[in-house]
Amino acid sequence: MSTCTSTEGQVIRCKAAVAWGPGKPLVIEEVEVAPPQAMEVRLKILFTSLCHTDVYFWEAKGQTPVFPRIFGHEAAGIVESVGEGVTELKPGDHVLPVFTGECKECRHCKSEESNMCDLLRINTDRGVMLNDGKSRFSINGKPIYHFVGTSTFSEYTVAHVGCVAKINPEAPLDKVCVLSCGISTGLGATLNVAKPPKGSTVAIFGLGAVGLAAAEGARIAGASRIIGVDLNSNRFEEAKKFGVTEFVNPKDYNKPVQEVLAEITDGGVDRSIECTGSINAMISAFECVHDGWGVAVLVGVPNKDDAFRTHPINVLNEKTLKGTFFGNYKPRTDLPSVVEKYMNKELELEKFITHEVPFSEINKAFEYMLKGEGLRCIIHMGA
Amino acid sequence: MSTCTSTEGQVIRCKAAVAWGPGKPLVIEEVEVAPPQAMEVRLKILFTSLCHTDVYFWEAKGQTPVFPRIFGHEAAGIVESVGEGVTELKPGDHVLPVFTGECKECRHCKSEESNMCDLLRINTDRGVMLNDGKSRFSINGKPIYHFVGTSTFSEYTVAHVGCVAKINPEAPLDKVCVLSCGISTGLGATLNVAKPPKGSTVAIFGLGAVGLAAAEGARIAGASRIIGVDLNSNRFEEAKKFGVTEFVNPKDYNKPVQEVLAEITDGGVDRSIECTGSINAMISAFECVHDGWGVAVLVGVPNKDDAFRTHPINVLNEKTLKGTFFGNYKPRTDLPSVVEKYMNKELELEKFITHEVPFSEINKAFEYMLKGEGLRCIIHMGA
Repeated sequence: MSTCTSTEGQVIRCKAAVAWGPGKPLVIEEVEVAPPQAMEVRLKILFTSLCHTDVYFWEAKGQTPVFPRIFGHEAAGIVESVGEGVTELKPGDHVLPVFTGECKECRHCKSEESNMCDLLRINTDRGVMLNDGKSRFSINGKPIYHFVGTSTFSEYTVAHVGCVAKINPEAPLDKVCVLSCGISTGLGATLNVAKPPKGSTVAIFGLGAVGLAAAEGARIAGASRIIGVDLNSNRFEEAKKFGVTEFVNPKDYNKPVQEVLAEITDGGVDRSIECTGSINAMISAFECVHDGWGVAVLVGVPNKDDAFRTHPINVLNEKTLKGTFFGNYKPRTDLPSVVEKYMNKELELEKFITHEVPFSEINKAFEYMLKGEGLRCIIHMGA
Repeated sequence: MSTCTSTEGQVIRCKAAVAWGPGKPLVIEEVEVAPPQAMEVRLKILFTSLCHTDVYFWEAKGQTPVFPRIFGHEAAGIVESVGEGVTELKPGDHVLPVFTGECKECRHCKSEESNMCDLLRINTDRGVMLNDGKSRFSINGKPIYHFVGTSTFSEYTVAHVGCVAKINPEAPLDKVCVLSCGISTGLGATLNVAKPPKGSTVAIFGLGAVGLAAAEGARIAGASRIIGVDLNSNRFEEAKKFGVTEFVNPKDYNKPVQEVLAEITDGGVDRSIECTGSINAMISAFECVHDGWGVAVLVGVPNKDDAFRTHPINVLNEKTLKGTFFGNYKPRTDLPSVVEKYMNKELELEKFITHEVPFSEINKAFEYMLKGEGLRCIIHMGA
């Protein structure tokens, strides 16, 4: 990486897609990217993709907006340079930046059960780096703010070392970039949290990218029935590619979908995974699991004012309710092994990638998502 | 057991404490106990104890009452004779009858995760045997009804073989009789469901017999802090014997007890076990566990109209909500090993036994419980 090391310690001028205000199309601008400070790394981003969370905070409805900002958090790249104290990464390493982190020092990082790092857990309101409370991006000296510590809609970005997973350098970055958020979230919800036994029945609520990744996890785990639940029946055809064997549209019935599922499964599914964030779907996902052994896993992010409500007898009847954040993966410790699942052909990623655009056409990726078209659009930074 | 076998196939006339109506003191009557039918066994009960569930269905408030009835479900005895098809038990075996069963054939029994047998799961409304829909008890030809398949307030009783656990014949029946319901429920909630890691912090809601058994489980598991939560501060002194190290009375604070617990535990307890059945305690027990790894286990039985309500973000933050029935023990498969825990002095039962009365004074046991005095009162059938 001789081309990289020459920029070490220097401000890099490069292209970034800047969001100047809520809902305004991104503008490709030339930005300055400061060198990484202590415990930070500067990355050359090669591929990034668009996730709902980018769109949600770009629209900034009902939020305190942080603008101008560089969005983007699903990506893959190469380390350009590292700041003071960084020993685990070096220039040239292939990496996935992650919107949440792993400091390896806090109680969560030291617990085998948690991935909710105290220091680096996702913070959508913060637009600056932890080290000095400032942004590394600027245009003519004026700060452009960060997003969830990644800001991957830029040719170069700076991230805390705890938010960067080093991966197999053989892995094709234009494919594994999707593992840095949504796909790992759904996959891990199934493999790490729901853990369906071989031959079991799994219900997936919501057949977007996260739900289909959860289905992919159920397929990998050897579930024999994977029931997709979605209000849009058009999604069933594509869902079959991800192992979904049956489809239930709640709109087709006059009774709660948990009752429909109980009827077709002799009392309830073995596992359910909720990927919509709708409170009613969460309640249905819990109540549709079988008593005695059923486990429901919530993945979708709820609204602020939602209340999860159920009769406690459902709990007493040995149904388990769990939730997960980023599929319970610890970013640095666990993501490399997810990449390996793709490398050894256990996990299929190509089917998640429905669109590709050059960086100059990044706003098209927003259009596809707003129209609900496709699953993941890969943005080629070098194109 | 030559004294027993002589009665095989015959109606046995013996003493039983009959409840003639809701809330009426029991009357010791001479009853006829028919021989066991297919898959049934007739037991000589030596010791029985009183549990809240007996009192609840004896008071029969807001229920469809089943009377006259013989209550009692925590007990120990000896097999007198067995019905057709019974191969796992023989006259003379030492046993614990259990209010719920294990048929070993249904999906629940075949699942490693469940103990909620489809055939023999607790049924508090049924007053007859499964085989013929009739009672085995009568007085002058008129039926006296069963309670949860055990009816141990009788010198002899008949139970389905699936509701009878064969135990170590060396075990003192006047002690291990308490394992046939409440103590196993609390103990199993901790050891089988909450599974606190060594050195962890555990909150116990409700310091009655079940809660103290849950605390005993936490002590056995090696928890380093066991926080008792109860509205009655007088219970703390006794709770110390069961490993409770700290005490919180929600009435002493102006904020929700989950906030109090979070403050004294740096963010939440590792495990909580709810043994009161109060819906507010259930919600507090869930919300007081630490994000990332906390597990709450509900044990107490809720009211019919209760609603468990929480913000779903608590679930998304990786708090787990579980419930348990009979501590997840499969009666026949698992109870023998709980008896062994007592035999090898890992589990202490003596401290649960606060009163003892002869059978003729069984109504005293009801008085102790109604006054909230003590934990378990052993009723000596032979005395």
